[in-house]
Amino acid sequence: MADTQPGNLRIDGERLWTSLMASAEIGPGKAGGLCRLAASDADKAMRDLFRQWCEAAGLTVTIDRLGNMFARRAGRDNDLAPVTMGSHLDTQYAGGRFDGILGVLSGLEVIRTLNDHSVETVRPLEVINWTNEEGCRFAPPMASAGAFAGVYSEDFVATRADDDGLLQGAELERIGYRGPAPVGGRTLDAYFELHIEQGPILDAEAIPVGIVTGGYKSFGAHVDVHGETAHAGPTPMEKRRDALVGAARVVAAVNDIGWKYQNTLGKTTVTRLVAWPNKPGIISEWAQFSLDCRHPDPATAGAMWAEIEAAIPAAAERARVAMEITTRWEFGNERFDAGLIGLLRGAARDLGVKSRDLLSQAGHDAYHVSKCAPTAMIFSPCINGITHNEAEDIDLRMTEPAVNVLLHAVLARANRQVAA
Amino acid sequence: MADTQPGNLRIDGERLWTSLMASAEIGPGKAGGLCRLAASDADKAMRDLFRQWCEAAGLTVTIDRLGNMFARRAGRDNDLAPVTMGSHLDTQYAGGRFDGILGVLSGLEVIRTLNDHSVETVRPLEVINWTNEEGCRFAPPMASAGAFAGVYSEDFVATRADDDGLLQGAELERIGYRGPAPVGGRTLDAYFELHIEQGPILDAEAIPVGIVTGGYKSFGAHVDVHGETAHAGPTPMEKRRDALVGAARVVAAVNDIGWKYQNTLGKTTVTRLVAWPNKPGIISEWAQFSLDCRHPDPATAGAMWAEIEAAIPAAAERARVAMEITTRWEFGNERFDAGLIGLLRGAARDLGVKSRDLLSQAGHDAYHVSKCAPTAMIFSPCINGITHNEAEDIDLRMTEPAVNVLLHAVLARANRQVAA
Repeated sequence: MADTQPGNLRIDGERLWTSLMASAEIGPGKAGGLCRLAASDADKAMRDLFRQWCEAAGLTVTIDRLGNMFARRAGRDNDLAPVTMGSHLDTQYAGGRFDGILGVLSGLEVIRTLNDHSVETVRPLEVINWTNEEGCRFAPPMASAGAFAGVYSEDFVATRADDDGLLQGAELERIGYRGPAPVGGRTLDAYFELHIEQGPILDAEAIPVGIVTGGYKSFGAHVDVHGETAHAGPTPMEKRRDALVGAARVVAAVNDIGWKYQNTLGKTTVTRLVAWPNKPGIISEWAQFSLDCRHPDPATAGAMWAEIEAAIPAAAERARVAMEITTRWEFGNERFDAGLIGLLRGAARDLGVKSRDLLSQAGHDAYHVSKCAPTAMIFSPCINGITHNEAEDIDLRMTEPAVNVLLHAVLARANRQVAA
Repeated sequence: MADTQPGNLRIDGERLWTSLMASAEIGPGKAGGLCRLAASDADKAMRDLFRQWCEAAGLTVTIDRLGNMFARRAGRDNDLAPVTMGSHLDTQYAGGRFDGILGVLSGLEVIRTLNDHSVETVRPLEVINWTNEEGCRFAPPMASAGAFAGVYSEDFVATRADDDGLLQGAELERIGYRGPAPVGGRTLDAYFELHIEQGPILDAEAIPVGIVTGGYKSFGAHVDVHGETAHAGPTPMEKRRDALVGAARVVAAVNDIGWKYQNTLGKTTVTRLVAWPNKPGIISEWAQFSLDCRHPDPATAGAMWAEIEAAIPAAAERARVAMEITTRWEFGNERFDAGLIGLLRGAARDLGVKSRDLLSQAGHDAYHVSKCAPTAMIFSPCINGITHNEAEDIDLRMTEPAVNVLLHAVLARANRQVAA
């Protein structure tokens, strides 16, 4: 690698921080973090700023039909597929300033560093901002990267509705980011995603670089509950068909399953429970919730899922309601690319940076991208593992090493020789 | 009583039914019932129609500052306090066509019958429509009658907000029903409320008249839950402070308590559970729910309440969240007036109508009014006890006897001699 890699090249941490802090002003939450939902006005403002930064760095920005943004730096041979870096600029309702954002802006920082030193690459480079990774406005999460990888159709993703019935495609149109480029259908030479760990391990062990070798196996589902309205007062217990009670019994059972597997790092969650009419004085006839479980061992995750699948009809029977799983998903058994993982390890070693292997516990766009391109992820520490919380924070000094590992791995990949 | 009571007087069931069916057109639900929320456009349309009917029957309509409507028929001595009949014209989100409405329109039918036969009364009569009995748009329920009785201040009730933040007083202003009359502060000679039973007993026993001797003892509360947002994936179970899990564990525990007391007719309910952010991918930091228990025996109701009060901190501890009861209420130990109950029994006997004593299980405006005036309630059957459900239905033939009992009890009361 040494001949293609100017080993002394380092990113500018202060510049990266300045960019992160500029982002942190756009779509403020209520407690110092961000509430920058996909395809919102705040998302538009952030996209506009990112685009402006990219164009100032000499990149050509392309937007596809799902709002995914690709900022391209030409290589010496532009017939070759690009080496890409990216993540997402949208946040949760009560999101942090770094989740996703660090990956996109680190990609930009890598480009800026190469520009500073007039370093060319053989292959073109691209920085990617995937639309709506969080999925908190339009479910499911990671679907725009999923569509790029062929997992979902463009139409499916564009027609996902938020809680007000607004469609993702129409909202992207409204903010000027339903672009002309087709979704996917082209080759990426590699995809690198740098992300905060969203767990406590790197911070606790004071290790600045996590090399992600795979993901927790995760199963999830949306469940609909069908009961019957009745007076919340006189209706005898044995005549009730209370959708909220049915849903709540699943929440409790799923939480119990998580605790049962807690010692081996299993987790379960129910998010977004809604009911109708959900008003005083009346028993709800309908409820809906999302649940998931995850475990580092796929077989154990499967066992957890089987327990959840048994808990659903049990709760339905007790509440005298009908429950149906309307959507299922699973992810996490994706394997990241051995060649790219090797490049990351080599870059960390060459830079003298302490690293360790990790499994990702959260979902990431990289999972989907790994289905259509060689993919790897780098984790950097987040303080106390706090994330999806406005208090999410990082230490720049503990973040810079991962961005430098990204820089050198990308350079190595972009300049690699391929046997004829 | 015979000298003041034209014993052959009977209400016009077909006319009552026509009025009920005209009401049933205003604010249709999605399944044949009604969704006529307090202070909505549909509520305005129904109020306008009721007012028009009242004025056509020669009544003078007064509106108070909380939208309560009083339609007065002069007596021979208008210095005497009025004998009143009433209930409410608002409905649940998925409400029936008779809950509340039957009581108001039966009052009007009594007046129309007296008009038909030119029957005067010594005391004036009034038909009352209480605002927002259901409480499903603005909580708590029955608060406008409560303000009339001095239980709540006018300001408290006027400033209750719906889920969109709209205030009850402003919404009444908007629909033209924030009237000029002060709330309460005047004497009612008597208040009669005819209501569908909202339970299955009269229908099952084929008894057309229930004489309500009191109410189930009921305790209720609003509970706030305070947790912390975190990533729904990686956050270890033991680090989570999940407000939704805390709330759901209370729902399950409260439901268990209801089942425990089911054999002695105890009931428990949790309605209106909301959480924030309540979105995919993130643990909710906040939740809120309403719960209640009720039992015919006040001591047993108290025991149920004590179990609920113990279940709340137990659930909070398991979910590592803080819970606080922000509002408490109780009702149902009100005693209806022995004199009025005697009049109802006498009227039923004189009319040859089968009746039985009953306890009310639901809350009613009459509970509050009983604190400021002699009060009684008459129940009529609803089919299979189905209510707060759009399928709520009645059989006119099984309803007419209760309206005739109302007519004759009101006549007897309005014409009674009072010892000097």
